This record gives sequence, C-alpha cells and structure tokens, in this order.
Amino acid sequence: MATVQDLISAISLVYLIYFVKSGMAAHPNFIIMLMDDMGWGDLGVYGEPNKETPNLDRMAEEGMLFPDFYSANPLCSPSRAALMSGRLPIRNGFYSDNAHARNAYTPQDIVGGIPDDEILLPEILKKAGYRNKIIGKWHLGQQPQYHPLKHGFDEWFGAPNCHFGPYDNKKTPNIPVYKDKQMIGRYYQDFLIDRETGESNLTQIYIQEALTFIESQVSSQEPFFLYWAVDATHEPLYASKPFLGTSRRGLYGDVVRELDYGVGKILNKLRQLGVQENTFVFFSSDNGAATYAKIHGGSNGPFLCGKETTFEGGMREPSIAWWPSRIIPGQVSNQLGSLMDLYSTLASLAGQDIPTDRVVDGLDLTKVLFGNYEIKRPLFYYRGNELMAVRLGEYKAHLWTWTNSVQEFQRGVNFCPGQSIENVTTHDQVNHTTEPLLFHIGRDPGEKYIIKPNSQEYKDNIGSIKQAVKQHRANLVPGKPQLNWCDKSVMNWSPPGCEKLGQCYNGPSSNPKKCVWPH
Amino acid sequence: MATVQDLISAISLVYLIYFVKSGMAAHPNFIIMLMDDMGWGDLGVYGEPNKETPNLDRMAEEGMLFPDFYSANPLCSPSRAALMSGRLPIRNGFYSDNAHARNAYTPQDIVGGIPDDEILLPEILKKAGYRNKIIGKWHLGQQPQYHPLKHGFDEWFGAPNCHFGPYDNKKTPNIPVYKDKQMIGRYYQDFLIDRETGESNLTQIYIQEALTFIESQVSSQEPFFLYWAVDATHEPLYASKPFLGTSRRGLYGDVVRELDYGVGKILNKLRQLGVQENTFVFFSSDNGAATYAKIHGGSNGPFLCGKETTFEGGMREPSIAWWPSRIIPGQVSNQLGSLMDLYSTLASLAGQDIPTDRVVDGLDLTKVLFGNYEIKRPLFYYRGNELMAVRLGEYKAHLWTWTNSVQEFQRGVNFCPGQSIENVTTHDQVNHTTEPLLFHIGRDPGEKYIIKPNSQEYKDNIGSIKQAVKQHRANLVPGKPQLNWCDKSVMNWSPPGCEKLGQCYNGPSSNPKKCVWPH
Repeated sequence: MATVQDLISAISLVYLIYFVKSGMAAHPNFIIMLMDDMGWGDLGVYGEPNKETPNLDRMAEEGMLFPDFYSANPLCSPSRAALMSGRLPIRNGFYSDNAHARNAYTPQDIVGGIPDDEILLPEILKKAGYRNKIIGKWHLGQQPQYHPLKHGFDEWFGAPNCHFGPYDNKKTPNIPVYKDKQMIGRYYQDFLIDRETGESNLTQIYIQEALTFIESQVSSQEPFFLYWAVDATHEPLYASKPFLGTSRRGLYGDVVRELDYGVGKILNKLRQLGVQENTFVFFSSDNGAATYAKIHGGSNGPFLCGKETTFEGGMREPSIAWWPSRIIPGQVSNQLGSLMDLYSTLASLAGQDIPTDRVVDGLDLTKVLFGNYEIKRPLFYYRGNELMAVRLGEYKAHLWTWTNSVQEFQRGVNFCPGQSIENVTTHDQVNHTTEPLLFHIGRDPGEKYIIKPNSQEYKDNIGSIKQAVKQHRANLVPGKPQLNWCDKSVMNWSPPGCEKLGQCYNGPSSNPKKCVWPH
Repeated sequence: MATVQDLISAISLVYLIYFVKSGMAAHPNFIIMLMDDMGWGDLGVYGEPNKETPNLDRMAEEGMLFPDFYSANPLCSPSRAALMSGRLPIRNGFYSDNAHARNAYTPQDIVGGIPDDEILLPEILKKAGYRNKIIGKWHLGQQPQYHPLKHGFDEWFGAPNCHFGPYDNKKTPNIPVYKDKQMIGRYYQDFLIDRETGESNLTQIYIQEALTFIESQVSSQEPFFLYWAVDATHEPLYASKPFLGTSRRGLYGDVVRELDYGVGKILNKLRQLGVQENTFVFFSSDNGAATYAKIHGGSNGPFLCGKETTFEGGMREPSIAWWPSRIIPGQVSNQLGSLMDLYSTLASLAGQDIPTDRVVDGLDLTKVLFGNYEIKRPLFYYRGNELMAVRLGEYKAHLWTWTNSVQEFQRGVNFCPGQSIENVTTHDQVNHTTEPLLFHIGRDPGEKYIIKPNSQEYKDNIGSIKQAVKQHRANLVPGKPQLNWCDKSVMNWSPPGCEKLGQCYNGPSSNPKKCVWPH
C-alpha cells in the first residue's frame, strides 16, 4: 500500500511537471480580488479565531502567503488609484492638500478623478491582447470621463462610489450601478440592501458576473484580467439570505463567509475550465479593517489601530497569491510588498513594459512568487500629502503620528478602539521628523515599544531609514491633487443610461467648494 | 498521469484504512506538550505574522486545531495542577485565600503542593500499564512529598520550580534539576543560562530526553505518557546557540523556533518508529503570553491582556491535537475546551474510569476529536479564590474585573500594554455579579464592546449564564488552599541527591508566614 510519504513525493512530482509545462504558457489570465475594508486578521489563515474562511485558507495552502503586504494608503480611493497606476497617491494625484495629512477619497460630490495621463494596469494589459473587466467598486471618480471604460477596462459591472447611504434619491441621488458604459439601476432603489437585516444579493451578483466573464473568456481563448472589487465588508455590511446568521462572528462574519464562498466558486471555476495553471490570482484588501465601525468592522489581528491610520492596522493587508503549477504550494513570503507591485508584476507576466517616463513605485514580484526571493525596498506610509512613516526591513519609523483630532475623538470617532499608546496614538499631529519614532515590527507588530533614540539599535538603524526618506523626497514630483474640490453638481444625478430608466434627476448648478477632510 | 484530485482521493483512502486499522489499537501512547507562557498568537497557524513555526503549522494541518481552548487558570502552577488533576484549582487547592482574587503559584518558599488525595492523570494511566515521564517544569510543589514520582510519574527530568533567578546559590539556592528522584545539578551553576545572551542548551536537552524516552518505550512495547513541559518561553528566555539571532521576532522568536524544532523532532521520531498512528499528541500552553514582559513576552493575537488576567489573553491557549489515522487532518474544532479535558480524555482513551467520588471538571473529548462533535459546557475563569468570569457558547460574562492595582500599575507592571477599555481593564477589583459585563466573544474577541444590560441580547443570554454560575456554586466544595504559607526553610536547600554533588546548603529555621500575592 502507498505510504503518505509516497503520496507526498508523487504530489511534488506532479507539481514539478506542471511547473515545467506551464513555464511555456504565454499571457496568463489575471484575477485581482480586492476586498473593501477587510482586515489582516479576518482570515482563518491569518489568525481569525473562528476560522470561517475555508476557501481562502485552502487558497493559501495551495499558494503563497504574504503576511508583510501593504496597501499604498489607509483609505479606499487612494489605495485603489495606486493599485491601478502602480504609483503612490502623492504622485498620481489621489490626495488633497486642503489641509495637512488628511485622508481624502471620492464621495459623489468630488470633482476630480483618475487623471488621463496615468497609465493604468488595464491599459498596459490591453496592449498585450487582454480583455479587462472590473466587477464592483471603482472609486476613481464618478464623472463619466473618469470611468473604467475610459481607462482601459472593456467591461464593468459595479458602481463608481461607495454603496453607503441611503440617500434621498432625488435630493441626493443613490449611487448608480453600471453595466459597462451605462447605468442599469441604483443602490437601494434597484439593487436592494436592507439596512435593517443586512440582506442583499449583491455579492451573489458579483460572483455570478465573475463566473460568466471567466467562462466567456476561456471559451474565446482571449486572455483576461478580472478586477473583482467586491465591497460587502464595507459599511453598510450586506450578505445574501442563505449566509445571514450563519457566522459565529455576527453579520460581519456572515459577509466574510459569503466572500470566502465566492473566492471558492471562482477558483473552482478555473479548475473546472482547466485554466487554473494559466491563471494568476491575487487576493488582498484596499486598507485595514474599519475599527471605528466597532462590531461592524473587521479585525486587524495583532496590529495597531485600523483604516485611516498609518499604523500597521491601517495598511497591512491579508494577501494571498495563487497559481497552481507556478507557485509552489504552502509557501510564506516575508517580502515587503505593496498592492502597487501588482501593476509591475502583471505587466511583467504579460510581457509588457511599464512606463519609463515617470516613477513607478510598484516592483515586479515575479522572482518572489516563483523563486521565494526577497527584494529589499523601503515602504512608504502616506496620509494625504504627508509621508507619515517608513518601513525598511523590520524597522518602521514614524515621521508623524496622528489618529484623529481630540474633537472628533471626543465625539466618539475612534480609529484605535481599546488601544492607546502614549506618544504614538496621538490626537495631535506630532512631528517626529528630526527624531523619528522607531519600532521593530518583527518583534513588536503592535507598535507598542518605542526604541529609545539613545540606544545603539536606534543609532544603527535610523541612518538607512533617513537615507531612504531623503532619496524618496529627492525624486518626488507630487501630482496635481485631485481630491481638493467638491461640488454637488457633479453627483450622480444623470449618469449615462439614466434616461432609459427614468432616473435622470436635476442637480444643483455648479458651486465648487474646497472639500472638508476631517481626518 | 495522476491528477491532483486522484492523489487527494488516494490520501483519503489511506487515512480511512489507517482509521479502521488503528481503531483496534489498545493503549495508545500520549504526549502532552505544554508550553510555558506561550500565547495564542505565537504560532503561524494562529496568526503570528512572521510565520516561523513550520512544524507546529504542519502539526495543525495534519491534525485538529482548537482555537477555543483554555487553561484552567491564568497562572502556571494552578493551571498545571488543574491539568494533572482534571479539576479546577479552587477544588484541588491550588489557590490562596490570603487576599481576594489573587494569583498564587509555587515559588520555592511555598509550603504547600499537590495534595495526596488528588488523583493525578499519571496515577490513572499507571493502572492501565503506562510508563509516565515528565520532562521540564513540574510546579506542583518543590518539597519532596509533592514530587512527580510520588504522584504517578515513573521518570522525571526537570525542575520543581520556575527557572528564573539567578539566585545567590547559598543565601537563596538555585533551582535544582532532577533526574527522577534525585537532583543532578542546579540552574545557572550546572545548567547554564546566560542572562546576557539568552544562550542555554536546556531545550536541546529536553528534546533529547523526549526522543530517548520514546525510543526506549517503543522498543519495550510498553505504552507511555510523556508530559513535555518545556519552559524556554518563560522569562528569562533562552535558546541554544544555533537558534540565537535566527528569528525575525528577536530572542522570543528564537526560543519559539527552537521549541517548534523540538516538536518537529518528536513527531518525526514517532513517524520513524512507526508509532504515529498509535500516539495521541496534544500541544498547548499553561496560560496566556506574559504581556507584562514586553518584547520578552509572546503574543495573544487579537485577545485582550495576558497572563495573570481572566480576559481572553490570559487563558486562551494555542492548542493542536494530532493523531494520524484517528484524527482527520486539517480540521478545526470550535469546542470550548480546557486543559482539564485532557485528564478525562486520556483516561478514556486508556480505558480507565475517572474518579467518581469528587467533581472532575475535565470532559472526555474523544467524540470531539474523532467525530468533530461539539459538547455544550460552561467555562469558568478563576483568579485565586474568585470566579471572575464565565463563558457559555459565544457569550462571556465578567462577574469581576481586575487587571492589577493602581499602585502596581503606576510602578510599571502592566498586564495589558497598549490596551485599555473603560470599565473592563479596571485597576480596582470591580464586582459585577449582580449585573455581569456581557461580551459576545465570537464577534468581539478583544472584549471591547460591552453588550448593554437593557438590550434584548443581554436579556436573552444572561439568564443561562447566571444559571450556570448558580449550579457551579451549588456543587462547589473548595479544596484546602495550598498556596497560603511561605517559609524560607522549605526552599531547595538540600534536595535529595545534593550530597553527591556537594550542594547541600543550610537553610534558615522554619518561620512560616502568609505569602503576599500582589495581584
């Protein structure tokens, strides 16, 4: 009878054969699964105590785990703009300088959006013959000139802005849901989300959209890029009826379970269609869990604070790479990674160059994925127009600390519930640039123990960090800020296609004002 | 060519055959691997971000994970006494009533120890023909009448007390290391621990002791129980030279890596000797990570506070069950478990009855292990002589809250560094027994969001918890407290065997005093 050892040897052999075989495949398919406000600690494989993500845990077992992977920003729109452009928000314009170090995004009265001169990932892949689809939340501008189909995507099913509300749909229009270039309805009025029960079929629709697209692309033999940007873990949370009440974690857990189910459905579809060996899938999230949402927010595991902050909880993401036959299963990479790296990595895998006329922050991680190589690089934590912190190796230096204002905190807005660290989770914007607050993230992932500035360890490590900052600043040409101006006239009053639905509303006349970003 | 699916089917078949075969095996071997102050969040599989425990992670993949497993006490001696006796410390006497709700243990001037009338697990197993060995820390009393060989163990390699010190070895004797009934040296003077570098070979010795015992037992065909109670993650941390400086987590990580290596060596030895299908191994820890030790303490993951407290961080343990062919691999059990359950479970697996003349708190988990069945039970969180909290299902109610005194806290002793929750992490002993503080641990593992007493959820759930408390109290006969009296004359001055080593010292004459337990 075969022993377990024999079987393990046989499996290794199978993978080796797959590896050699698939090395020849050109134009692999790509799927980026980007969650919304999901935290590092929300997956079983990342230590969520209820262990309710069997599909993601299996994905990790079959793929490569990236526990040191980051978003480029602690907030949704800038993080997504960075992912799509391969560049920090400070470069691509997804920030505001209305005030210092403020998180800005794209509510529906924002005037700006992704600039035309940013070359987005789908534009690069299109040159290699890819068909590109975005499912879910775009968040790079709701005015038509900013839409995904103007920036490299071929298909779209989803919304330009966050699904929160509800709005009075005439005084303030509900967010439209698009199919490609035209809206096909609006949240709440057409795409129901029950704010009382959390019931909605949206995730099911997003799953089905993904499966249909994959099937269609496989049958046409055209390589594809699917950007699956589902948003159910962003408030208001929603899940379909069969998932409601099924989690030990309450509604948030129900939502995670449905997304995990969706991941399983998509990976299984790839297997069923026999394209799993030619499809690179990357799972991550746009920023840390929204700890301010209390039990409606996710978990950042052992990390400090959450979304909106440049502590680890704000930007460290639950990331998994999956590519049977190319990525050896069960590996862990401690590569310091960024969502921006997907830009350069996917371009590289598609045989395309990235732009050379500008700084691209994303690195090509193919060596990391296929050789478990580790690339040394600094990682920059921005909040709006300010470089707040830098990580280099295991060390992280805070140049500035801030959670939110005392006033906001006293009104009950808390980005660090249950956590408080003297001189770290400050409610004033504190400038540490001359003597940065230094932490060793490896032994102190919770950023609790400041390394004393007079210690040898501090002296040994601060120099290279300061050097990295200096070099970064020397090469920095800030983009024109896109998130400075707000104007109610640009809201989703009359999106393309509204006339067919009788949903064209009259907005007010233009009255641009500087947006107010409280934190 | 065989597909991956074929291989998975083949593996399932192999396990099925193993299962049927091993169902016939009588008197399986047992290994309890009990860590010292290791936290829930210290294992890769439990979300430690550096993922440096490949052997434990593999053990979990091959076995069953228990994310809801608890120690019976947030401190070492009572926790270990409960594990050995299957009974809460309040019953077996491992507590003090010198003051209210104080953590007490067995420093070397303690007069008490494990009472003779407690029937320990090795005593039960001995009746079934087992040979029992303890390697490492005993901690149930250092006076000879309390020694493990007087309480069911056949062999001992290790120490009666904690290895901290160092002591002036004549004014205050160093802790002896025993081989069976006699000491063979003392910490620091004979078994070196370099307090500067953390270097010590002790874990290597404990690993070798385990391997030798297993080999010898397998060759004699006598069933065995090995209690591998290693202590390197307890301050002062130590690791052997090849492991020092190898972890991304600093010294604590080096120590964990060496213990993980040891786990791998032991499991591999079982495989090499072909007894893995007849050996049940359980890995856990005696209490939560010592968060007060800062970077020299471990991680409790997303849980609140640590060792010494009855918050989740104090008592939730990183637990894994392993038994190839009997436990289906890769399972997670959300059974509310306790280290005391190992008492009843091992007795059951050895075909022995547990005592019926007293309350045994441990449950027989065989149905859970082999059928992934879930047993409903309340779980009690004690601190000294006080029932502080109760968990029933997903709800946890605090009857009392306390971290430590304001005075101690102001001196810098902090059981909850970086964490502070109003009305929860109190520095006064606050009595909530009439209206317990209620938490839903499933959606709020960090015990941050008190469920409002006027809410329907509170009303729906507090009744059954109060009922469980009432029932528990009705059946409670507190044991005679063993940890009330301290006396320098009972320290390890002249342990058995000291004369051969020239290490018999003269202690002071007897002068018993009530021990002072500050927290």
